[in-house]
Amino acid sequence: MPPPVPPSPTDRIAPLREFVTGMTRLVDRTADEPTLLARGRELLAALIADDAWLPGEFAEPAVDTYRQYLLHCDPLERFCVVSFVWGPGHRTPIHDHTVWGLVGVLRGAERCTEYAPNEGSVVARGLEHTMKPGMIEAVSPTVGDWHLVANALEDRPSVSIHVYGANIGAVRRHRLDDAGRIVDFVSGYSSARLPNLWDRSAEVRAGKA
Amino acid sequence: MPPPVPPSPTDRIAPLREFVTGMTRLVDRTADEPTLLARGRELLAALIADDAWLPGEFAEPAVDTYRQYLLHCDPLERFCVVSFVWGPGHRTPIHDHTVWGLVGVLRGAERCTEYAPNEGSVVARGLEHTMKPGMIEAVSPTVGDWHLVANALEDRPSVSIHVYGANIGAVRRHRLDDAGRIVDFVSGYSSARLPNLWDRSAEVRAGKA
Ligand SMILES: [Fe+3]
Ligand SMILES: [Fe+3]
Ligand SMILES: [Mg+2]
Repeated sequence: MPPPVPPSPTDRIAPLREFVTGMTRLVDRTADEPTLLARGRELLAALIADDAWLPGEFAEPAVDTYRQYLLHCDPLERFCVVSFVWGPGHRTPIHDHTVWGLVGVLRGAERCTEYAPNEGSVVARGLEHTMKPGMIEAVSPTVGDWHLVANALEDRPSVSIHVYGANIGAVRRHRLDDAGRIVDFVSGYSSARLPNLWDRSAEVRAGKA
Repeated sequence: MPPPVPPSPTDRIAPLREFVTGMTRLVDRTADEPTLLARGRELLAALIADDAWLPGEFAEPAVDTYRQYLLHCDPLERFCVVSFVWGPGHRTPIHDHTVWGLVGVLRGAERCTEYAPNEGSVVARGLEHTMKPGMIEAVSPTVGDWHLVANALEDRPSVSIHVYGANIGAVRRHRLDDAGRIVDFVSGYSSARLPNLWDRSAEVRAGKA
Protein backbone atom coordinates (compact mmCIF):
# COMPACT_ATOMS: atom_id res chain seq x y z
CA MET A 1 0.00 0.00 0.00
CA PRO A 2 1.36 3.49 -0.79
CA PRO A 3 2.49 5.66 2.15
CA PRO A 4 -0.13 7.96 3.69
CA VAL A 5 -0.56 11.48 2.32
CA PRO A 6 1.45 13.50 4.85
CA PRO A 7 -0.25 16.45 6.60
CA SER A 8 0.80 19.82 5.23
CA PRO A 9 3.60 21.41 7.31
CA THR A 10 1.97 24.82 6.86
CA ASP A 11 -1.71 24.11 7.68
CA ARG A 12 -2.83 25.19 4.20
CA ILE A 13 -6.28 23.76 4.88
CA ALA A 14 -6.96 26.27 7.70
CA PRO A 15 -9.52 28.32 5.67
CA LEU A 16 -11.67 25.22 5.16
CA ARG A 17 -11.45 24.29 8.84
CA GLU A 18 -12.46 27.82 9.82
CA PHE A 19 -15.40 27.65 7.41
CA VAL A 20 -16.51 24.33 8.92
CA THR A 21 -16.22 25.68 12.47
CA GLY A 22 -18.18 28.82 11.51
CA MET A 23 -20.93 26.80 9.84
CA THR A 24 -21.09 24.42 12.83
CA ARG A 25 -21.60 27.30 15.27
CA LEU A 26 -24.23 28.71 12.88
CA VAL A 27 -26.32 25.53 12.68
CA ASP A 28 -25.90 25.09 16.45
CA ARG A 29 -27.67 28.40 17.07
CA THR A 30 -30.34 28.47 14.37
CA ALA A 31 -32.40 26.43 11.90
CA ASP A 32 -33.91 29.55 10.28
CA GLU A 33 -33.32 29.29 6.53
CA PRO A 34 -32.96 33.02 5.74
CA THR A 35 -30.34 33.32 8.52
CA LEU A 36 -28.49 30.21 7.35
CA LEU A 37 -28.39 31.48 3.77
CA ALA A 38 -27.32 35.02 4.74
CA ARG A 39 -24.62 34.05 7.22
CA GLY A 40 -23.59 30.97 5.22
CA ARG A 41 -23.08 33.19 2.19
CA GLU A 42 -20.71 35.46 4.16
CA LEU A 43 -18.67 32.48 5.35
CA LEU A 44 -18.57 30.92 1.87
CA ALA A 45 -17.51 34.22 0.29
CA ALA A 46 -14.48 34.31 2.62
CA LEU A 47 -13.62 30.69 1.76
CA ILE A 48 -13.74 31.07 -2.03
CA ALA A 49 -11.85 34.37 -1.98
CA ASP A 50 -8.75 32.23 -1.31
CA ASP A 51 -7.90 29.63 -3.92
CA ALA A 52 -4.91 27.98 -2.18
CA TRP A 53 -6.52 25.67 0.40
CA LEU A 54 -8.15 22.96 -1.77
CA PRO A 55 -5.91 19.85 -2.08
CA GLY A 56 -5.37 18.84 -5.72
CA GLU A 57 -6.98 15.45 -5.15
CA PHE A 58 -10.34 17.21 -4.52
CA ALA A 59 -10.03 19.46 -7.58
CA GLU A 60 -9.29 16.65 -10.03
CA PRO A 61 -11.76 16.32 -12.93
CA ALA A 62 -12.91 13.02 -14.36
CA VAL A 63 -13.17 12.35 -18.09
CA ASP A 64 -16.75 11.15 -18.18
CA THR A 65 -18.76 13.36 -15.85
CA TYR A 66 -18.55 15.85 -13.00
CA ARG A 67 -17.10 14.83 -9.63
CA GLN A 68 -18.61 15.49 -6.20
CA TYR A 69 -15.95 15.35 -3.49
CA LEU A 70 -17.34 15.56 0.04
CA LEU A 71 -15.01 17.80 2.09
CA HIS A 72 -16.96 17.74 5.39
CA CYS A 73 -20.24 16.42 6.73
CA ASP A 74 -21.67 17.70 10.02
CA PRO A 75 -21.90 14.62 12.28
CA LEU A 76 -25.59 15.37 12.86
CA GLU A 77 -25.99 15.87 9.07
CA ARG A 78 -27.22 19.46 9.45
CA PHE A 79 -24.95 20.61 6.62
CA CYS A 80 -22.17 19.39 4.35
CA VAL A 81 -19.45 20.92 2.16
CA VAL A 82 -18.73 19.54 -1.33
CA SER A 83 -16.20 20.35 -4.05
CA PHE A 84 -17.87 20.02 -7.46
CA VAL A 85 -15.39 19.60 -10.31
CA TRP A 86 -16.56 19.93 -13.92
CA GLY A 87 -14.35 18.88 -16.80
CA PRO A 88 -14.82 20.63 -20.14
CA GLY A 89 -18.43 20.24 -21.30
CA HIS A 90 -19.66 18.56 -18.12
CA ARG A 91 -23.12 19.37 -16.78
CA THR A 92 -25.55 18.21 -14.13
CA PRO A 93 -28.98 16.89 -15.02
CA ILE A 94 -31.90 19.28 -14.34
CA HIS A 95 -32.35 18.58 -10.63
CA ASP A 96 -33.60 19.79 -7.25
CA HIS A 97 -32.18 19.62 -3.71
CA THR A 98 -35.13 19.58 -1.23
CA VAL A 99 -32.88 21.46 1.23
CA TRP A 100 -31.14 24.84 1.17
CA GLY A 101 -27.86 25.16 -0.68
CA LEU A 102 -25.20 27.72 -1.56
CA VAL A 103 -22.98 27.41 -4.63
CA GLY A 104 -19.75 29.43 -4.75
CA VAL A 105 -17.48 29.39 -7.80
CA LEU A 106 -13.81 28.86 -6.92
CA ARG A 107 -12.23 28.42 -10.39
CA GLY A 108 -13.27 28.68 -13.98
CA ALA A 109 -16.89 29.57 -14.76
CA GLU A 110 -20.28 27.89 -14.51
CA ARG A 111 -23.47 28.42 -16.41
CA CYS A 112 -26.58 28.12 -14.30
CA THR A 113 -30.13 27.73 -15.68
CA GLU A 114 -33.14 27.92 -13.34
CA TYR A 115 -36.33 25.87 -13.65
CA ALA A 116 -39.68 25.88 -11.88
CA PRO A 117 -42.25 23.11 -11.28
CA ASN A 118 -45.10 23.16 -13.79
CA GLU A 119 -47.88 20.61 -14.26
CA GLY A 120 -45.92 17.56 -13.16
CA SER A 121 -42.69 18.54 -14.84
CA VAL A 122 -40.39 21.58 -14.74
CA VAL A 123 -39.93 24.44 -17.19
CA ALA A 124 -37.07 26.87 -17.70
CA ARG A 125 -37.60 30.15 -15.92
CA GLY A 126 -35.69 32.01 -18.61
CA LEU A 127 -33.00 32.96 -16.09
CA GLU A 128 -29.63 31.72 -17.33
CA HIS A 129 -26.42 33.31 -16.09
CA THR A 130 -22.70 32.75 -15.96
CA MET A 131 -21.02 32.63 -12.56
CA LYS A 132 -17.35 33.51 -12.12
CA PRO A 133 -14.96 33.04 -9.19
CA GLY A 134 -16.31 34.71 -6.07
CA MET A 135 -19.96 34.60 -7.18
CA ILE A 136 -22.45 32.76 -4.97
CA GLU A 137 -25.97 31.54 -5.61
CA ALA A 138 -28.63 30.11 -3.30
CA VAL A 139 -31.13 27.29 -3.90
CA SER A 140 -33.94 25.88 -1.77
CA PRO A 141 -37.62 24.92 -2.06
CA THR A 142 -38.32 28.44 -0.75
CA VAL A 143 -36.08 30.53 -3.01
CA GLY A 144 -36.07 28.26 -6.09
CA ASP A 145 -34.90 24.65 -6.06
CA TRP A 146 -34.60 23.34 -9.64
CA HIS A 147 -31.63 24.13 -11.81
CA LEU A 148 -28.97 22.85 -14.19
CA VAL A 149 -25.30 23.71 -13.71
CA ALA A 150 -22.71 23.30 -16.46
CA ASN A 151 -19.07 24.14 -17.04
CA ALA A 152 -19.13 27.40 -18.99
CA LEU A 153 -15.61 26.69 -20.24
CA GLU A 154 -14.97 24.23 -23.05
CA ASP A 155 -11.24 23.83 -22.55
CA ARG A 156 -10.65 23.78 -18.79
CA PRO A 157 -12.11 22.38 -15.56
CA SER A 158 -14.24 24.53 -13.28
CA VAL A 159 -14.59 24.08 -9.52
CA SER A 160 -17.31 25.28 -7.17
CA ILE A 161 -17.71 24.82 -3.42
CA HIS A 162 -21.22 23.93 -2.28
CA VAL A 163 -22.82 23.94 1.17
CA TYR A 164 -26.15 22.16 1.67
CA GLY A 165 -28.51 21.90 4.65
CA ALA A 166 -28.13 18.09 4.84
CA ASN A 167 -25.79 15.22 3.92
CA ILE A 168 -26.66 15.95 0.29
CA GLY A 169 -25.20 12.72 -1.15
CA ALA A 170 -27.71 10.76 0.95
CA VAL A 171 -30.77 12.90 0.22
CA ARG A 172 -33.59 11.42 -1.85
CA ARG A 173 -34.23 14.18 -4.35
CA HIS A 174 -35.22 14.45 -8.01
CA ARG A 175 -34.00 15.01 -11.56
CA LEU A 176 -35.42 15.01 -15.08
CA ASP A 177 -34.64 11.95 -17.15
CA ASP A 178 -33.96 12.07 -20.90
CA ALA A 179 -37.70 11.91 -21.57
CA GLY A 180 -38.39 14.91 -19.31
CA ARG A 181 -39.96 12.87 -16.51
CA ILE A 182 -39.24 13.58 -12.85
CA VAL A 183 -37.40 10.61 -11.37
CA ASP A 184 -35.70 9.90 -8.04
CA PHE A 185 -32.10 11.02 -7.64
CA VAL A 186 -29.57 10.15 -4.90
CA SER A 187 -26.22 11.68 -5.78
CA GLY A 188 -23.68 9.96 -3.51
CA TYR A 189 -20.03 11.05 -3.56
CA SER A 190 -17.04 10.46 -5.81
CA SER A 191 -14.53 9.51 -3.11
CA ALA A 192 -14.29 7.42 0.05
CA ARG A 193 -11.67 9.83 1.44
CA LEU A 194 -12.03 13.29 2.99
CA PRO A 195 -9.32 15.88 3.63
CA ASN A 196 -7.99 15.90 7.22
CA LEU A 197 -8.81 19.44 8.42
CA TRP A 198 -7.56 18.83 11.94
CA ASP A 199 -3.78 18.53 11.96
CA ARG A 200 -2.86 21.76 13.72
CA SER A 201 0.29 20.20 15.20
CA ALA A 202 2.81 22.33 13.29
CA GLU A 203 1.17 25.56 14.46
CA VAL A 204 0.84 24.29 18.04
CA ARG A 205 4.52 23.26 18.18
CA ALA A 206 5.53 26.65 16.78
CA GLY A 207 3.53 28.31 19.54
CA LYS A 208 1.17 29.95 17.08
CA ALA A 209 -2.05 28.13 18.02
CA MET B 1 -3.39 11.65 -10.36
CA PRO B 2 -4.83 8.22 -9.47
CA PRO B 3 -8.65 7.85 -9.51
CA PRO B 4 -10.49 8.52 -6.26
CA VAL B 5 -11.06 5.66 -3.81
CA PRO B 6 -14.68 4.70 -4.62
CA PRO B 7 -17.22 4.60 -1.80
CA SER B 8 -18.06 1.09 -0.64
CA PRO B 9 -21.24 -0.24 -2.28
CA THR B 10 -22.22 -1.89 1.00
CA ASP B 11 -21.68 0.91 3.57
CA ARG B 12 -19.08 -1.16 5.45
CA ILE B 13 -18.11 1.92 7.45
CA ALA B 14 -21.56 2.18 9.08
CA PRO B 15 -20.33 1.00 12.55
CA LEU B 16 -17.82 3.87 12.68
CA ARG B 17 -20.43 6.40 11.58
CA GLU B 18 -22.81 5.14 14.27
CA PHE B 19 -20.03 5.42 16.87
CA VAL B 20 -19.34 9.01 15.79
CA THR B 21 -23.02 9.93 15.92
CA GLY B 22 -23.38 8.35 19.37
CA MET B 23 -20.30 10.16 20.71
CA THR B 24 -21.52 13.47 19.20
CA ARG B 25 -24.88 13.17 20.96
CA LEU B 26 -23.02 12.26 24.16
CA VAL B 27 -20.73 15.31 24.17
CA ASP B 28 -23.73 17.47 23.17
CA ARG B 29 -25.52 16.54 26.39
CA THR B 30 -22.69 16.37 28.93
CA ALA B 31 -19.13 17.41 29.76
CA ASP B 32 -19.02 15.22 32.89
CA GLU B 33 -15.94 13.02 32.67
CA PRO B 34 -17.27 9.95 34.50
CA THR B 35 -20.34 9.94 32.22
CA LEU B 36 -18.22 10.40 29.10
CA LEU B 37 -15.93 7.53 30.11
CA ALA B 38 -18.78 5.19 31.06
CA ARG B 39 -20.98 5.81 28.04
CA GLY B 40 -18.00 6.21 25.69
CA ARG B 41 -16.74 2.81 26.84
CA GLU B 42 -20.09 1.20 25.89
CA LEU B 43 -20.04 2.78 22.43
CA LEU B 44 -16.38 1.83 21.88
CA ALA B 45 -17.02 -1.75 22.98
CA ALA B 46 -19.69 -2.08 20.28
CA LEU B 47 -17.35 -0.61 17.68
CA ILE B 48 -14.38 -2.89 18.38
CA ALA B 49 -16.55 -6.00 18.64
CA ASP B 50 -16.76 -5.81 14.81
CA ASP B 51 -13.46 -5.98 12.95
CA ALA B 52 -14.75 -5.46 9.39
CA TRP B 53 -15.31 -1.69 9.17
CA LEU B 54 -11.76 -0.27 9.25
CA PRO B 55 -10.44 0.46 5.71
CA GLY B 56 -7.05 -1.16 5.09
CA GLU B 57 -5.41 2.21 4.48
CA PHE B 58 -6.04 3.11 8.16
CA ALA B 59 -4.73 -0.21 9.49
CA GLU B 60 -1.43 -0.09 7.58
CA PRO B 61 1.71 -0.21 9.76
CA ALA B 62 4.86 1.76 9.03
CA VAL B 63 8.34 0.27 9.28
CA ASP B 64 9.87 2.84 11.59
CA THR B 65 7.27 3.70 14.23
CA TYR B 66 3.60 3.50 15.12
CA ARG B 67 1.01 5.30 12.99
CA GLN B 68 -1.82 7.54 14.24
CA TYR B 69 -4.62 7.79 11.68
CA LEU B 70 -7.32 10.30 12.57
CA LEU B 71 -10.71 8.76 11.66
CA HIS B 72 -12.95 11.62 12.90
CA CYS B 73 -12.61 14.92 14.74
CA ASP B 74 -15.63 16.62 16.26
CA PRO B 75 -15.89 20.01 14.50
CA LEU B 76 -15.87 21.73 17.92
CA GLU B 77 -12.90 19.51 18.92
CA ARG B 78 -14.76 17.97 21.88
CA PHE B 79 -13.53 14.50 20.93
CA CYS B 80 -11.70 12.64 18.21
CA VAL B 81 -11.31 9.03 17.04
CA VAL B 82 -7.88 7.65 16.06
CA SER B 83 -6.65 4.32 14.71
CA PHE B 84 -3.26 3.50 16.26
CA VAL B 85 -1.27 0.94 14.29
CA TRP B 86 1.82 -0.67 15.81
CA GLY B 87 4.22 -2.69 13.73
CA PRO B 88 6.20 -5.45 15.43
CA GLY B 89 8.20 -4.00 18.33
CA HIS B 90 6.72 -0.50 18.07
CA ARG B 91 6.01 1.47 21.24
CA THR B 92 4.97 4.93 22.34
CA PRO B 93 7.19 7.06 24.53
CA ILE B 94 6.09 7.36 28.19
CA HIS B 95 3.48 10.10 27.77
CA ASP B 96 0.36 11.81 29.11
CA HIS B 97 -2.81 13.15 27.47
CA THR B 98 -4.14 16.06 29.62
CA VAL B 99 -7.67 15.04 28.54
CA TRP B 100 -9.74 11.88 28.99
CA GLY B 101 -9.15 8.96 26.65
CA LEU B 102 -10.35 5.44 25.95
CA VAL B 103 -8.17 2.80 24.26
CA GLY B 104 -9.87 -0.25 22.72
CA VAL B 105 -7.86 -3.06 21.15
CA LEU B 106 -9.18 -4.10 17.73
CA ARG B 107 -6.48 -6.55 16.55
CA GLY B 108 -3.37 -8.16 17.93
CA ALA B 109 -2.34 -7.33 21.50
CA GLU B 110 -0.88 -4.36 23.36
CA ARG B 111 1.16 -4.13 26.50
CA CYS B 112 0.30 -1.18 28.67
CA THR B 113 2.46 0.15 31.53
CA GLU B 114 1.15 2.85 33.88
CA TYR B 115 3.20 5.66 35.43
CA ALA B 116 2.51 8.35 38.01
CA PRO B 117 4.02 11.82 38.53
CA ASN B 118 6.75 11.87 41.19
CA GLU B 119 9.11 14.71 42.11
CA GLY B 120 9.31 16.33 38.69
CA SER B 121 9.41 13.08 36.75
CA VAL B 122 7.23 9.96 36.52
CA VAL B 123 7.69 6.50 37.98
CA ALA B 124 6.21 3.15 37.01
CA ARG B 125 3.18 2.24 39.07
CA GLY B 126 3.99 -1.45 38.79
CA LEU B 127 0.81 -2.08 36.81
CA GLU B 128 1.69 -3.67 33.49
CA HIS B 129 -0.89 -5.66 31.58
CA THR B 130 -1.60 -7.11 28.18
CA MET B 131 -4.75 -6.02 26.37
CA LYS B 132 -6.41 -8.22 23.79
CA PRO B 133 -9.17 -7.50 21.22
CA GLY B 134 -12.29 -6.20 22.93
CA MET B 135 -10.45 -4.88 26.01
CA ILE B 136 -10.76 -1.19 26.81
CA GLU B 137 -8.77 1.08 29.13
CA ALA B 138 -9.34 4.66 30.28
CA VAL B 139 -6.81 7.45 30.87
CA SER B 140 -7.19 11.00 32.19
CA PRO B 141 -5.58 13.34 34.70
CA THR B 142 -8.31 12.13 37.10
CA VAL B 143 -8.04 8.35 36.65
CA GLY B 144 -4.34 8.12 35.72
CA ASP B 145 -2.79 9.91 32.75
CA TRP B 146 0.76 8.66 32.15
CA HIS B 147 1.46 5.42 30.34
CA LEU B 148 3.46 3.59 27.72
CA VAL B 149 1.75 1.40 25.12
CA ALA B 150 3.63 -1.16 23.03
CA ASN B 151 2.82 -3.88 20.54
CA ALA B 152 2.80 -7.09 22.61
CA LEU B 153 3.37 -9.10 19.44
CA GLU B 154 6.80 -9.37 17.85
CA ASP B 155 5.73 -10.73 14.49
CA ARG B 156 2.50 -8.92 13.58
CA PRO B 157 0.86 -5.48 13.67
CA SER B 158 -1.62 -4.54 16.37
CA VAL B 159 -4.41 -2.00 16.01
CA SER B 160 -6.33 -0.09 18.68
CA ILE B 161 -9.11 2.48 18.34
CA HIS B 162 -8.76 5.49 20.64
CA VAL B 163 -11.24 8.21 21.60
CA TYR B 164 -9.95 11.36 23.32
CA GLY B 165 -11.73 14.38 24.81
CA ALA B 166 -10.04 16.81 22.37
CA ASN B 167 -8.36 16.99 18.94
CA ILE B 168 -5.54 14.94 20.45
CA GLY B 169 -3.03 15.53 17.62
CA ALA B 170 -3.18 19.28 18.38
CA VAL B 171 -2.95 19.02 22.17
CA ARG B 172 0.19 20.29 23.90
CA ARG B 173 0.98 17.42 26.22
CA HIS B 174 4.11 15.72 27.59
CA ARG B 175 6.47 12.78 27.27
CA LEU B 176 9.71 11.56 28.83
CA ASP B 177 12.81 12.03 26.72
CA ASP B 178 15.69 9.54 26.65
CA ALA B 179 17.19 11.20 29.73
CA GLY B 180 13.94 10.83 31.71
CA ARG B 181 13.05 14.51 31.56
CA ILE B 182 9.49 15.69 30.97
CA VAL B 183 9.35 17.53 27.63
CA ASP B 184 6.56 18.96 25.47
CA PHE B 185 4.82 16.59 23.09
CA VAL B 186 2.40 17.38 20.22
CA SER B 187 1.57 14.18 18.38
CA GLY B 188 -0.03 15.27 15.09
CA TYR B 189 -1.41 12.66 12.69
CA SER B 190 0.06 10.28 10.12
CA SER B 191 -2.29 11.10 7.23
CA ALA B 192 -3.90 14.10 5.55
CA ARG B 193 -6.88 11.95 4.57
CA LEU B 194 -9.84 10.70 6.61
CA PRO B 195 -12.34 7.98 5.73
CA ASN B 196 -15.63 9.26 4.25
CA LEU B 197 -18.23 8.02 6.76
CA TRP B 198 -21.15 9.71 5.03
CA ASP B 199 -21.87 7.99 1.73
CA ARG B 200 -25.21 6.38 2.57
CA SER B 201 -26.39 6.62 -1.06
CA ALA B 202 -26.49 2.86 -1.77
CA GLU B 203 -28.70 2.22 1.26
CA VAL B 204 -30.94 5.21 0.45
CA ARG B 205 -31.40 4.07 -3.18
CA ALA B 206 -32.20 0.56 -1.99
CA GLY B 207 -34.84 2.01 0.30
CA LYS B 208 -33.10 0.74 3.41
CA ALA B 209 -32.21 4.11 4.97
FE1 LIG C 1 -27.64 21.68 -7.64
FE1 LIG D 1 -1.66 7.29 25.28
MG1 LIG E 1 -25.24 21.69 20.58
